[in-house]
Amino acid sequence: MGIISSNAVADRGRAAARILRAADTATRDAALTAIARHLEADAAAILSANAQDVAAAVAEGIAASLVDRLTLDPQRLDALAAAVRAVAALDDPVGRIVDDRRLHNGLELIKVRVPIGRVLVVYEARPNVTVDVAALCIKSGNVALLRGSSSARATNAALGNAVRRGLADAGLPEDAVLSIEGTRAELGELVSDPATADIVVPRGGEALKDFLLEHSRIPVLAAAGGNCHVYLDREADQAMAVAITVNAKVQRPGVCNAAETLLVHADRLDLLAPVLGALHEAGVELRGCDRTRAAVDLPIAAATDADWSTEYLDLVLAVRVVDDLDAALEHIDRYATGHSEAIVTDSLEAARRFVDVVDSACVYVNASTRFTDGGEYGMGAEVGNSTARLHVRGPIGLEDLTTTKYVVTGTGQIRA
Amino acid sequence: MGIISSNAVADRGRAAARILRAADTATRDAALTAIARHLEADAAAILSANAQDVAAAVAEGIAASLVDRLTLDPQRLDALAAAVRAVAALDDPVGRIVDDRRLHNGLELIKVRVPIGRVLVVYEARPNVTVDVAALCIKSGNVALLRGSSSARATNAALGNAVRRGLADAGLPEDAVLSIEGTRAELGELVSDPATADIVVPRGGEALKDFLLEHSRIPVLAAAGGNCHVYLDREADQAMAVAITVNAKVQRPGVCNAAETLLVHADRLDLLAPVLGALHEAGVELRGCDRTRAAVDLPIAAATDADWSTEYLDLVLAVRVVDDLDAALEHIDRYATGHSEAIVTDSLEAARRFVDVVDSACVYVNASTRFTDGGEYGMGAEVGNSTARLHVRGPIGLEDLTTTKYVVTGTGQIRA
Repeated sequence: MGIISSNAVADRGRAAARILRAADTATRDAALTAIARHLEADAAAILSANAQDVAAAVAEGIAASLVDRLTLDPQRLDALAAAVRAVAALDDPVGRIVDDRRLHNGLELIKVRVPIGRVLVVYEARPNVTVDVAALCIKSGNVALLRGSSSARATNAALGNAVRRGLADAGLPEDAVLSIEGTRAELGELVSDPATADIVVPRGGEALKDFLLEHSRIPVLAAAGGNCHVYLDREADQAMAVAITVNAKVQRPGVCNAAETLLVHADRLDLLAPVLGALHEAGVELRGCDRTRAAVDLPIAAATDADWSTEYLDLVLAVRVVDDLDAALEHIDRYATGHSEAIVTDSLEAARRFVDVVDSACVYVNASTRFTDGGEYGMGAEVGNSTARLHVRGPIGLEDLTTTKYVVTGTGQIRA
Repeated sequence: MGIISSNAVADRGRAAARILRAADTATRDAALTAIARHLEADAAAILSANAQDVAAAVAEGIAASLVDRLTLDPQRLDALAAAVRAVAALDDPVGRIVDDRRLHNGLELIKVRVPIGRVLVVYEARPNVTVDVAALCIKSGNVALLRGSSSARATNAALGNAVRRGLADAGLPEDAVLSIEGTRAELGELVSDPATADIVVPRGGEALKDFLLEHSRIPVLAAAGGNCHVYLDREADQAMAVAITVNAKVQRPGVCNAAETLLVHADRLDLLAPVLGALHEAGVELRGCDRTRAAVDLPIAAATDADWSTEYLDLVLAVRVVDDLDAALEHIDRYATGHSEAIVTDSLEAARRFVDVVDSACVYVNASTRFTDGGEYGMGAEVGNSTARLHVRGPIGLEDLTTTKYVVTGTGQIRA
């Protein structure tokens, strides 16, 4: 591997993409099965390379949580191989016919799913992304250009070795998965050239995403943060209000589909004691508007404007009493990031209006925001969750790594 | 109208979008019908404003072809009103359910089409774009932000007047169609702010597109140029080869789906005389490789490398003899812009391989490239033709001005 120049990435990636997009399902699946086998056979070498990266990270004084994300053990490595086999077992999105018609002049038109081409993924410490992304790209007929963290360099090299041998076993080009190294500035140059790849997918923090949005002339498919809302309507059932709010906030607070703000209809201040009480017991720090703080006898800090737009990703919740459904909709329109919002209500009319007006990727009626997830939606593997408005919105599945092609077959038709 | 600041565009556009996306089909169609009516009733005022723009353009010495594009007459104005009524008659893409399932836990999930939000269209002299784009955006529930040419300012103001009154008649906000003026530099600033709009669509020359790709932090949905190919295979039928090549080159040479390069299998040099002869008779200037020039007794200039990548948009054709199908595929892979390519063949195997390997938006077997068009494909109105790989590829229809939203309805489900 090593640093390869921008031109080399474009040329080698393009040559490999040409072969990948004509490879059939069985060949791509055979490569995945072979990769899983090599990952298992190479376990000792991979774990020893990982131990080297981990030792270097510890010596550099990197935070324990990051060291944990970097670390592989036999169990995690087995899970990696199993994930590759699970991707192989998914339906092939490539070749799926999504539209077909016969035109007035007898032409037969089909619209068929084809690989996007070359997917550049920029990610941080977790070495499992190397294998996950390689597997998803191979399955969908795409070339993966991987730009991992330098802190995982030895691990990624060992994993890449297994991936390349699996590709070769199936007769696919090793360049179907290319590793790219280099500084942040070199990455900026790379993505400023539209020839480098067809899309860029950042998998990391907001800073990485902003860097790519700033510098990339290649379309960026960004998984975005979620400032998610739960709204308790005038017609909310109390037990449901408690269960959904607690689940949306507490079940896994560090992820993008967790709730960050609770909105409560002014006629239902009676919900505040049971809902906020349960949250308080679950260890949630509360920050409320004046009406919230006056209505209930719990330790609630005064919320500021900043709280309405903060994605805490932690056991903290902002709480606001709103005059009515319209006020809730206005709050959401102003502060939501377009990820996931929920209403708890028994009113069909309120549910309908919430669903129609809330402009988010995923809108819930009487269910927790935590369900926004490719696995939960029955899509198999997911690449992230999109709050963009073009191409894909919501969980990004395997099919979203494809584009379409029209194939028009005639008997000599010409245009009049 | 006049110049409105970047913040004003974002705020007013967002407020209007919130109303538009909740407006039902009947209301949006009523606005379109009212707009058509106002365009007819305002004919005198619109034509007089247009005469003013045309006089100024003539005084400035602008090229006659541009003056013609700028000019409206009673017939063109009638056609504009008719086009608005035709858009009203199309199926509503908004609210269409594109997927639905019941999840294992009983949740009901639907994936429904919703407006993208705010569509900024930057276009040049033709005032009909003002009305076309406004109609397509209103139909698809989007706010249109229109940035036309200063040379059509008076005309656009008069047309905008009719559009706004039509919106008001239907009870929709006049800000559903906002006109933006200002210099190129101000446009650059406007699109550098992601809050301005949800997508930008350039409708103009390559320079405008490049400017937007360079400066925009808003996703750009660009209709791209077409360096389109016709390949005559070893098994090509001679009559079909002549008819398709002539149609693809001659029927309307100035458009993006016209052929620019002809590739001919080396075993079929016999096709060169009838095909190139017919093109020559039709007034096409030919530029060929050495083998082409040696094979046929016609005036054919020597093609240089530059010819393979040139989109002539004129009665000029580059011609190259290739060793076999694979050599044709290699040429296309290297030089095509991913728009439309055709093979003429009686071989099912060659057709299949061409269709599988050619990575263009539209691939034709035994039919002219000239069919790449939303109208021909039965899609109704089209916004352009996309050679991008995300969101839409090929003709951009009304549905492509929408995104999707997941609506998940439960009975209190929480995530375990």
